[in-house]
Amino acid sequence: VGDQGQDFDRASAVVGRGDGTSYDADLHPAWTNAGHPNGGYLLATMARAAATSVLHDGHDHPHPLAASATYLRPPSVGPATVVVEVLRTGRTASQARVTLLEGDRTCVEALITLGRLSDDKPVFDDLAPVALPPEEDCLRFGAPPADPGVSAGPGAADPVTELRLDPAVLGFTTGVPGGTAEQRGWLRFTEDTPLGPLHLLYALDALPPATYDLGSVGWVPTVELTAYLRGLPAPGPLRVRQRARLVQGGRVDEACEVWDSTGRLVGQAVQLALVRLDARP
Amino acid sequence: VGDQGQDFDRASAVVGRGDGTSYDADLHPAWTNAGHPNGGYLLATMARAAATSVLHDGHDHPHPLAASATYLRPPSVGPATVVVEVLRTGRTASQARVTLLEGDRTCVEALITLGRLSDDKPVFDDLAPVALPPEEDCLRFGAPPADPGVSAGPGAADPVTELRLDPAVLGFTTGVPGGTAEQRGWLRFTEDTPLGPLHLLYALDALPPATYDLGSVGWVPTVELTAYLRGLPAPGPLRVRQRARLVQGGRVDEACEVWDSTGRLVGQAVQLALVRLDARP
Repeated sequence: VGDQGQDFDRASAVVGRGDGTSYDADLHPAWTNAGHPNGGYLLATMARAAATSVLHDGHDHPHPLAASATYLRPPSVGPATVVVEVLRTGRTASQARVTLLEGDRTCVEALITLGRLSDDKPVFDDLAPVALPPEEDCLRFGAPPADPGVSAGPGAADPVTELRLDPAVLGFTTGVPGGTAEQRGWLRFTEDTPLGPLHLLYALDALPPATYDLGSVGWVPTVELTAYLRGLPAPGPLRVRQRARLVQGGRVDEACEVWDSTGRLVGQAVQLALVRLDARP
Repeated sequence: VGDQGQDFDRASAVVGRGDGTSYDADLHPAWTNAGHPNGGYLLATMARAAATSVLHDGHDHPHPLAASATYLRPPSVGPATVVVEVLRTGRTASQARVTLLEGDRTCVEALITLGRLSDDKPVFDDLAPVALPPEEDCLRFGAPPADPGVSAGPGAADPVTELRLDPAVLGFTTGVPGGTAEQRGWLRFTEDTPLGPLHLLYALDALPPATYDLGSVGWVPTVELTAYLRGLPAPGPLRVRQRARLVQGGRVDEACEVWDSTGRLVGQAVQLALVRLDARP
């Protein structure tokens, strides 16, 4: 069963300092990409602090409905501080500015709208779940690192997620990218704790960069990420798709959608990221 | 020629108070919807203040590359204060938190990444311009109000823009919405001053709500809007498309794209908004 401290809910927990605005977090190595905490995991940690402050102000708005983050510097794993400024509270929604710091260095700042997701039926739904081969025909992505002690991210010896990508988008792993600027696959959280809305923030930033299928090299650091949570996810594997539309001037947009195991759209995100990709000859 | 003060660049101008962080703005009635300043116009005003503060810190980053705003309260036309906190400056990009206040009430808060847009050619472009009938076959939207002195927004006696919508999405104006959750059309700025990147922020929030084509009623207030500017627009009319994907629990996502007159994608935005729409029987 492994280290319970790495469960998403615990790993994204915050401990208030009693002033309603400052929180201690402990960023866990299980939820990293290339050694840095996943951007959606950071946002989940920040959303927890925001919901706590809003509750402190008398409003039970546990779920982030919209969260926009600007990534200034990648934090490391370990202790971090989260500072919340509640901008407005309301009957059905509240807004907060949330800052994540490492020491006195601001790493991420976010604007988060909080409220309550429900099981409302869609009045209009125009986005069918992404077509994927059966989960067992998709390929596990993220090999165990040589030394699990060094990087215990997804794919490590005691993995926290199981990400299986459609083989059609995996050409980049053998040097033959398909040219579609898309990544898609199934994502499972392997922990025993129930799948909640905050997990969706992780899912919305969990795929490899869509530009890998165009042959981009190296890290694709996120400049800005905006996530909308739309529903409470049913248990089971998530379908995730990330697509890029325009690569230009060293920047790329990516749009991500997440559907739950019943086929409902439960999360959407866009991000602007930096990318190294040469025009084809 | 009319009131030069309503030109977009002048209407979105800010005057610094000399401290590098506080600015005076004067929100102009020409750039309103239903009496309230357009959300993209507010963002343009805030971006000007942010670029000024970043320049004050020694970095010439005139263009918003990414801008995320949370709308707390709609400001009125007239005097407003913009406060900028520069979060980080860098060689190619800087980030700022920007707050727009009316008196001591915060109306909008935004996170803005600034840099410099260029005429780089796309390395990858997967988003063809939206198909539209010729501009002259599209229908002018926004009739002059009965009393131009009351609401001098787009469509007023001395209009600042000319928005022509595809007749196929105009069923809502005669009570027969088409059910596509889309709005699309041509947008021209009628002023003589050159079309610049900040105009794109307005364009990204200029269409009627996409849900009008689903029969939604009343105002569709934006909760959160994130815009990415991708290129310097060529002179001439813009093509604009706004689409909704999921209406559920009183909330809707809308995605907007803007192409310039040469067919280049120059702006993208998403927003989460509140909507009143009943399920169809």
